[in-house]
Amino acid sequence: MTPSKGYAAQNETADLAPWTFERREVGAHDILIDIKYCGVCHSDLHQIRNDWFPGIFPMVPGHEIVGIVSSVGAHVKGFKAGDIAAVGCLVDSCKTCSNCHDGLEQYCLNGSVGTYNGKGKDGLPTYGGYSSNIVVREDFALHVSDKLPMAAAAPLLCAGITTYSPLRHWKVGKGHKLAVLGLGGLGHMAVKFGVAFGAEVTVLSTSPNKEAAARALGAHHFVVTTDPAQVAAARGTFDFILDTVSAEHNMAMYLGMLRTNGTHICVGAPSTPHQIPAFSLLGGRKSVAGSGIGGIAETQEMLDYCAEHNIVADIELIDIKDIHTAYERMLKGDVRYRFVIDMATL
Amino acid sequence: MTPSKGYAAQNETADLAPWTFERREVGAHDILIDIKYCGVCHSDLHQIRNDWFPGIFPMVPGHEIVGIVSSVGAHVKGFKAGDIAAVGCLVDSCKTCSNCHDGLEQYCLNGSVGTYNGKGKDGLPTYGGYSSNIVVREDFALHVSDKLPMAAAAPLLCAGITTYSPLRHWKVGKGHKLAVLGLGGLGHMAVKFGVAFGAEVTVLSTSPNKEAAARALGAHHFVVTTDPAQVAAARGTFDFILDTVSAEHNMAMYLGMLRTNGTHICVGAPSTPHQIPAFSLLGGRKSVAGSGIGGIAETQEMLDYCAEHNIVADIELIDIKDIHTAYERMLKGDVRYRFVIDMATL
Repeated sequence: MTPSKGYAAQNETADLAPWTFERREVGAHDILIDIKYCGVCHSDLHQIRNDWFPGIFPMVPGHEIVGIVSSVGAHVKGFKAGDIAAVGCLVDSCKTCSNCHDGLEQYCLNGSVGTYNGKGKDGLPTYGGYSSNIVVREDFALHVSDKLPMAAAAPLLCAGITTYSPLRHWKVGKGHKLAVLGLGGLGHMAVKFGVAFGAEVTVLSTSPNKEAAARALGAHHFVVTTDPAQVAAARGTFDFILDTVSAEHNMAMYLGMLRTNGTHICVGAPSTPHQIPAFSLLGGRKSVAGSGIGGIAETQEMLDYCAEHNIVADIELIDIKDIHTAYERMLKGDVRYRFVIDMATL
Repeated sequence: MTPSKGYAAQNETADLAPWTFERREVGAHDILIDIKYCGVCHSDLHQIRNDWFPGIFPMVPGHEIVGIVSSVGAHVKGFKAGDIAAVGCLVDSCKTCSNCHDGLEQYCLNGSVGTYNGKGKDGLPTYGGYSSNIVVREDFALHVSDKLPMAAAAPLLCAGITTYSPLRHWKVGKGHKLAVLGLGGLGHMAVKFGVAFGAEVTVLSTSPNKEAAARALGAHHFVVTTDPAQVAAARGTFDFILDTVSAEHNMAMYLGMLRTNGTHICVGAPSTPHQIPAFSLLGGRKSVAGSGIGGIAETQEMLDYCAEHNIVADIELIDIKDIHTAYERMLKGDVRYRFVIDMATL
C-alpha cells in the first residue's frame, strides 16, 4: 500500500484534522502524484457536512489537485516521474458506456468515481487532495503546462472546467451577451473564459462593491440585482446566464433577464429545488439547463487553452491549518476568488 | 360597429351566459369571419376563473376558431368572402420588433394581443370565439384547406400549434425517443405530430386505462407513471419529453427519464412554480424549456402540414349550452380529446 497523510473529517459534525491513511499500490496503469497544491471548493464543505447526501467517513476532501509525478506503473505511457500532473473531480468511470465513449465520463451511465467521498472499482473509499499524495489511473490524470503557476492552476480542475465546459457546449462567444451570476470561485473563472471567448460579459451580483473587481477580471457590465431599476433595465437582455450560485435564489427574476430563446445554465447546486414558474419559460421559449464539470479530454483541452491564453484562477494561498478559517471566509464570500492549500504546510 | 353575440363570463365567479356585444367595424386590412366552430381549451377556464392573472370582464373565451369569411376590407389581399379562415391565440402584435420580424409574434417584445382577455391596439378588450363572428386583421388570420373537416381542424389553432412548434424548433424526428406527458387535447396532438415526424413516441400517463387509446393514436409505448417499476425502467430513456400537463407534477421524476443532454419541454402552465432540484439538471446536462403556441407563419405551415398529412384533432362536438358540463368533464380528463363548440347552437 501507499502511505499518505492528509486532513480528514471523521464524521459530518467533526472539523477536519490530521489523519494518516493508506492508498492503493501504484498499479500498472497508475501514477503516483506528490500533491503540491489543492484548491478549496464549496462542495468540499457541502460534502463533509452531508448537505447533499450521506458521505463516506473518514472523508479527505479536495478535487483541485496539482502536483509532481513521483512514480508510474509499468504500463503507463503518458506520464513520467517529474511531470506536472493534475486530478480533478473524477478518478474513474466505466469507460464502456455511450457517455464514456463520447468523452462525457462525468455522466458515466454506470456511475463515475468521485475523487473523494466515492467508492473505487475496488470497493474502497476514495480520498481527495487535502493530502500528501494520490494514486490515480493515468487516463484520469491531466497534464499541466509548466507555463502555468501550479498553485493558481489548481482551481482550473473544478472551478475552471465547470465553467469552461458549458460555455463550450452552448458555443458561447462573439455576438453573445453572457451574464455571470455570482462572483466566487466559479464565477470569476466564467468571466475570464467568457471574455476570452469573445462574449459581452455582465456580472450579476447582490454586492455593489464587487463592481470594480468584476471589471478588473474583464467584465464589460455589472448589474446589482438588489436594485429594481437595474434589474428592470436588464430585462430581456442576455443570451445566456451562467449561474454559479449554490444558495437558493430567485430564478423567475433571472429568467426575466434572458432574451427570447435564452438559456440559463446552472452549475451551482442549491440544496433546495429551484422554483421555476412555467410562464417564465413559455414566455420566450427559454431554457434552464444544468452542466456538471467536464469530461477528461475536455478538461485537458481547457488546461491547454489556459496555458495558451495565460488563464489561471485568482487565488489566496493558505496553510492547511487555516482551513476552517478559510471555510468561514468562503461562506461569507470573503475570498478573491479561490483558496488554495499549500500542501507543503501539511 | 359589427354586432356579435356570444357566451361571456361577467366576472371571475360567474358562469358563461349569452351576451350580445359589438366588435369593431371591418377595417381596410380586416376580415369578418362567421364562426362555425370553436375549440374548448383548458386555458379558457383558467382565464375566466382568473387563475393566471386578473382578467378583463365581461370575457368571451375561445381561441380555436374556424369559420367562413363573410366580408373583407378594401385592402385585404389574401382572403375573399367564402374562404375558410381560422384564428388562433393571437390577433395582433407590434410587427416591428425583432421577434415579430423573425415570425415569433407570440413573443412580441412589445406585447402581442390575445384573441380574448387582451386589449387591442385601439385600447378595447378583445373577445374570443365562443361567439357568432370575429373581426381580425388578415395577417393574423389563417387559411384552412377544404380537405380538413372544419370542426376537427379548430383545435389545431391552439392544441395543434402549441405542440407542433416545439417539436419543429427542437427538430424532433427520426432517431429520437419522444415522451408525451399527459394525453389530453395537447397531448394527443403531440402524439400525432411526433409519430408523423418519425420519432419513437411513448405516452406517459397516470392512467393505465389510457394505453389502448394512446396506441390507437400511434404511440409506440406507454408508461404508467404511478408504477415505480415502469418509471425505473424508463430512466435515462428519452431525448425529449413534451410536457402538456397544466397541474403540478413531479419534475424530478420526469427529468430522471431523460437521457444525457435531454430536454423537457413544458407547454402546459401549472399555477404553481415547477420544483426542479439542481442535480436533476446537472447530472446529465439536461434542460427544462418552455414553448408558447407559435407564430403566424408557423401556424399556417402547421395547418398546411395537417392538410397534406390528414391530421386533425379527435373531437367531441358540443352544443354551446353544454359548455359547463364540458368544463367539468375536461377537468376530470373525460374527453377524447377536445371539445369543440358547434356555433350553430348559439
